[in-house]
Amino acid sequence: MTDYHQGLAAGPANHTPLSPVSLVKRTAQAFPDTPAIVFDGAVQSWAHTYERCRRLAGALRVEGVDGQTTVAALCRNLPAAVELAYAVPMSRGVLNMINTRLDPEGVAFILDHGEAAVLFVDSGLAAVAEAALEIAARSPTLVLIEDPQAPFPEDWRAGGVPYEDFMAGAAPVAEDDLLPSDEWDAIALNYTSGTTGNPKGVVYHHRGAYLNAIGNSVEWSLPAHPRYLWTLPLFHCNGWCFPWTLAAKAGTSVCLRAPTGPDILDALRSEAVTHMCGAPIVLNMATTQAEADAVTLPAPVAFMTAGAAPPAAVLARAEQVGFAVTHVYGLTEVYGPAAVCAWRDEWNEAPAAEQARLRARQGVNYAVLEELSVRDPETLAEVPADGATMGEVMFRGNVVMKGYLKNPEATTAAFAGGHFRSGDLAVRHADGHVELKDRSKDIIISGGENISSIEVEGVLYQHPDVAEAAVVAAPDEKWGETPMAFIELRPGASVSSDAVIAFCRERLAHFKCPRHIAFEPLPKTSTGKIQKFELRARALAATGA
Amino acid sequence: MTDYHQGLAAGPANHTPLSPVSLVKRTAQAFPDTPAIVFDGAVQSWAHTYERCRRLAGALRVEGVDGQTTVAALCRNLPAAVELAYAVPMSRGVLNMINTRLDPEGVAFILDHGEAAVLFVDSGLAAVAEAALEIAARSPTLVLIEDPQAPFPEDWRAGGVPYEDFMAGAAPVAEDDLLPSDEWDAIALNYTSGTTGNPKGVVYHHRGAYLNAIGNSVEWSLPAHPRYLWTLPLFHCNGWCFPWTLAAKAGTSVCLRAPTGPDILDALRSEAVTHMCGAPIVLNMATTQAEADAVTLPAPVAFMTAGAAPPAAVLARAEQVGFAVTHVYGLTEVYGPAAVCAWRDEWNEAPAAEQARLRARQGVNYAVLEELSVRDPETLAEVPADGATMGEVMFRGNVVMKGYLKNPEATTAAFAGGHFRSGDLAVRHADGHVELKDRSKDIIISGGENISSIEVEGVLYQHPDVAEAAVVAAPDEKWGETPMAFIELRPGASVSSDAVIAFCRERLAHFKCPRHIAFEPLPKTSTGKIQKFELRARALAATGA
Repeated sequence: MTDYHQGLAAGPANHTPLSPVSLVKRTAQAFPDTPAIVFDGAVQSWAHTYERCRRLAGALRVEGVDGQTTVAALCRNLPAAVELAYAVPMSRGVLNMINTRLDPEGVAFILDHGEAAVLFVDSGLAAVAEAALEIAARSPTLVLIEDPQAPFPEDWRAGGVPYEDFMAGAAPVAEDDLLPSDEWDAIALNYTSGTTGNPKGVVYHHRGAYLNAIGNSVEWSLPAHPRYLWTLPLFHCNGWCFPWTLAAKAGTSVCLRAPTGPDILDALRSEAVTHMCGAPIVLNMATTQAEADAVTLPAPVAFMTAGAAPPAAVLARAEQVGFAVTHVYGLTEVYGPAAVCAWRDEWNEAPAAEQARLRARQGVNYAVLEELSVRDPETLAEVPADGATMGEVMFRGNVVMKGYLKNPEATTAAFAGGHFRSGDLAVRHADGHVELKDRSKDIIISGGENISSIEVEGVLYQHPDVAEAAVVAAPDEKWGETPMAFIELRPGASVSSDAVIAFCRERLAHFKCPRHIAFEPLPKTSTGKIQKFELRARALAATGA
Repeated sequence: MTDYHQGLAAGPANHTPLSPVSLVKRTAQAFPDTPAIVFDGAVQSWAHTYERCRRLAGALRVEGVDGQTTVAALCRNLPAAVELAYAVPMSRGVLNMINTRLDPEGVAFILDHGEAAVLFVDSGLAAVAEAALEIAARSPTLVLIEDPQAPFPEDWRAGGVPYEDFMAGAAPVAEDDLLPSDEWDAIALNYTSGTTGNPKGVVYHHRGAYLNAIGNSVEWSLPAHPRYLWTLPLFHCNGWCFPWTLAAKAGTSVCLRAPTGPDILDALRSEAVTHMCGAPIVLNMATTQAEADAVTLPAPVAFMTAGAAPPAAVLARAEQVGFAVTHVYGLTEVYGPAAVCAWRDEWNEAPAAEQARLRARQGVNYAVLEELSVRDPETLAEVPADGATMGEVMFRGNVVMKGYLKNPEATTAAFAGGHFRSGDLAVRHADGHVELKDRSKDIIISGGENISSIEVEGVLYQHPDVAEAAVVAAPDEKWGETPMAFIELRPGASVSSDAVIAFCRERLAHFKCPRHIAFEPLPKTSTGKIQKFELRARALAATGA
């Protein structure tokens, strides 16, 4: 026996907390003049971005931010959103990027539940922010990010200090004081709408954020200096950790106010974009725009897509115009993508339809994820790799969340048995790849956004004429999926589809409202459970694929 | 204040020890049929390699191997050496790859100091192994790796069980039992020959090995499935962690008995090699062979070089035949390379000589290394980035060793002040890059001025007749020390001392030029390092104090 412990303890020379902050610091030193952020034709270098973020972090610390402080932001994919991804971790605060598509009630719930001490507000979202602040119990310090194309309204009453003024007054945090005290410390808080009413606050740690950032780089074989177009919202799993991936590879964030077809195509061409991420709907949008403009991309653009399997027809068209598509899979709880359809060279020999089928599978774990498994949710036994036996997708490893904020019951349930239980159903094929068979039964994914069917049903049930309601996903060319409602009316009642939709729009973010309504009896199991798989079949038939 | 600790602890779902073993397991699942090892025309897949390594690990556990057990190997770059890099960590043992160029006394010292419980012996090294075992106090279990081209001698008396038999009898370690209990556990023991006294045993941990493996992939922007030629010895910092890097990228190890010019060039062409590592001397050897054969490589081969700055002349010739050179820097104590001359696009505009000068610098920290600094060894103050002020190179971060085995004094000294002190002297340039000036003991101090032996050697290498050169301090009555050069000429070349000195005076400040020249073979360590202490002795004798 050899003693490999005595005199071999960890100390400051050989152990530092894993944190994305280290990647920012290093790139600012190694590539100071490389562009970090491009927006509206303006270019900001890595050295300048680093210096600004250290000052922003300094300003946050003056506000009292520490490792137990939530710093929230309601901001589109502007340069400030990228800077916040660096500066808030440098302050040791916990970054809470809020879904910009939520209604004021949704934003207010998050501000209160997350106990935001500071809120960064993008002027383009001033109206929803002001309304949310009126509802919310909390009154966070406001910092105002003004977009000259959509300035704050004259009658903006919520107060606040301009973003540039906020950071201008502060001393930058010292370079040797940027890291968290522990890599297990929280770095971000991301709310996810589960299948039950209120969203849950998913807490990320520095260790996981660092590893998934590096993991993106490894899975995508990122070259030095990728030029990355921000269509994926930065509030989605912190832009799936890509601000930190770009820091690892000294890449450039090309920012966009909104991911419209023309703006995407314009940026692809004028900014020499090499990489981008998004839901299949964004891939479809960019492809359609390129087709409409009769443009073939001058160089291939790597496109990482997640949120739903990319349809074969979209894949084929996208590759035609010059996108090289990588399909990844994950959930908010695993920092965004943690599985990848890892392409095998031998598949290049397969017919195109077979290739599309293979590419639509969710694949295998990221190298940085210890395990992606498909298990019987009761016994935890792994399903056989037969491509037929369904089980629940489970994740285990360092890119799994700390847990849900102030929700120990949900955390315990999610981690029961020592795996994160995704709620997604899948099979494992003989070649080892996992394929989803049913996104968790209730979730509708519309334009990359999760919609809880139960939340929509809850509103429908508020309508006086509704006896029973069930909401499922209907296929939609543009959005991927949209909610379709099946309703049994109360005896003698009568109401139009339009009236029901209008009722919902008063109570829900518009993207969550049903696009189609069917008034008919609901199919049920013998124990009285509504059979959603049957409703999905009806929705498919009704909306017609 | 938001409570980001309560109910958010680490558990089996969201925390696993960082270990290279995870990368092997994952690639075996994601790319089972991809070649892992190629040797003598035989190909072994990742699935097969994984299964063999699990069995080998099982056999080691039967031998009683655990986290406090040293498993030594004296083996060339054969497939077994790659398998041991995977299997020994899976057994939880500590892998001790022994320098194959040591004499029996050196091997015996390591077996005894490291307390090897098992020794794998390559038949090509049977003689030194047998002699070492006669000297050593320990009698490790012997496992015999037979190379059919150099079988064990008839009269081999040391005993042992054949490698294939050893693993054939064992049950593979279960897939959920492969990881260490803690990422800080030791994974490897690598002896480094100081210039004085006994070698020190550098202990690596799983966390650092994992991170440096990933770090190699990030710095080199490795594509999927690199085909990697093993010229760098696997006993050098575990092949600088590249067995584990290849696991992360599902690459292929192309093994070689010995890195001779013809064998390297043959492998480059017949095995479609894409990547390789080695000292500048190997780069020079491969380049010279390509020139001799009048061959240009069909596709660029990425060459990562370390151990000394590549001379400009070698760089230029290497790029001519098709090598794309990346210069990295490190020491055994930091898992091999932990700094990289990170190339900046704007340098492409510089003249060739300037590019060579830039590429010869040691550069900046790896993304996975927290900090590379140049400090006053007394005050620990960082030197100004003026390209002139010398200080000691120091490392801090997760890719720094646990410490030296059974040598707490040396460990404490190496980590004094919270940095690993390399003993190398360097400057930091205004652009942030670090440039080595010398080992602290190799610096020449003449009339109070520091002379970098590396700088003088760089000029000597520009001389067309010089094959190898080394410069050391010779005692001098007037100046204290003056440079003396030891030179090996190219075959057939002839040049006078005066001509060489004149050549230097055209290119260097006169006080830096050698006052004495000796044309003679250079003494080298078993790892090919020029033995400057021996040259200093010769300089003392030649110039006579």
